[in-house]
Amino acid sequence: MGILHEESLGQVRPQEGSAAPEPNAPIAGKPSSGEDAKSGGLDSSRYGGELGPAGVILPEDLTRKVDFEKGGGVVPAVIQDAATGQVLMVGYMNRESLMETLASGRTVFFSRSRNRLWRKGEESGHVQLVRAIYLDCDADTLLIEVEQVGGAACHEGYVSCFFRQLTHEGLKVVGKKVFDPVSVYGKKA
Amino acid sequence: MGILHEESLGQVRPQEGSAAPEPNAPIAGKPSSGEDAKSGGLDSSRYGGELGPAGVILPEDLTRKVDFEKGGGVVPAVIQDAATGQVLMVGYMNRESLMETLASGRTVFFSRSRNRLWRKGEESGHVQLVRAIYLDCDADTLLIEVEQVGGAACHEGYVSCFFRQLTHEGLKVVGKKVFDPVSVYGKKA
Repeated sequence: MGILHEESLGQVRPQEGSAAPEPNAPIAGKPSSGEDAKSGGLDSSRYGGELGPAGVILPEDLTRKVDFEKGGGVVPAVIQDAATGQVLMVGYMNRESLMETLASGRTVFFSRSRNRLWRKGEESGHVQLVRAIYLDCDADTLLIEVEQVGGAACHEGYVSCFFRQLTHEGLKVVGKKVFDPVSVYGKKA
Repeated sequence: MGILHEESLGQVRPQEGSAAPEPNAPIAGKPSSGEDAKSGGLDSSRYGGELGPAGVILPEDLTRKVDFEKGGGVVPAVIQDAATGQVLMVGYMNRESLMETLASGRTVFFSRSRNRLWRKGEESGHVQLVRAIYLDCDADTLLIEVEQVGGAACHEGYVSCFFRQLTHEGLKVVGKKVFDPVSVYGKKA
């Protein structure tokens, strides 16, 4: 049973004129061998901003492994708290937002309703620092482990957007509320 | 900050001619109050098959709270291992498959590629027993905690479909392989 096979991404591009890249700086988390995707991916390194040195795959190459076509240009990205394992939200990413996510180390989504990039936390300050990114077997869904700044992912003030449970007595709020949306966004959510 | 508000689902329907329902049988997990969606939802009860007694919300009513329209009739459902918190896969559900999921206590998806219901495990036997279902703030995404029979959710034999990590050295397999797809499905995945 093969663990830690590497899949080549084809040609590796040399470093191009970027602003002061640090050669050999750790710009991506390394997987731990022999562990499963969940526990193995939790490391303290972060996807960084600079272009890597020769021999390092650049974000543009990475995004080519993702099948954006099936979903009309976007893929769902499940956002999971790297420390607790709690699923915080699901957003959508197009190629541009994934590239910016990889480059900045913060989650950037594509808002389908607003039809533009949505830098998570741009209004609230509750950014998500990316710890690891996984791709599923069909290459059409992402799983991203993050550190959630501010402790809450949901614009309604809850830790997780999944704060309501379907029960046979109806929908029940079971989530933990961390902040008041009015105080953060200045309006009712 | 309100925890455990109940949202009424409108009228409650009396039990209709179902086969031998057990009155007051626990057919849905109850949320624990004051805990967050992740930890609070982990309980041992299961969504059951029978119709409930009068005063209990039926699956048909529950599905009305989900916004299937935005996604063209389907919503993504994040499947999480109830015991470990590992994200196993993302599937899609239409109203019919969600109703069958609620009624049977096993995940049933709508396969977009095959354009039909897909009862998870129908070929492999690796069914997913539903422990809790959550709805997100936009009501267009589900999070389902399950017990994964057979230990692996992915048809390629891995515990999780997210067995590959994006790293700056390329895509790396970091997941744990539990079975050989050829021996389970009789063909190469």
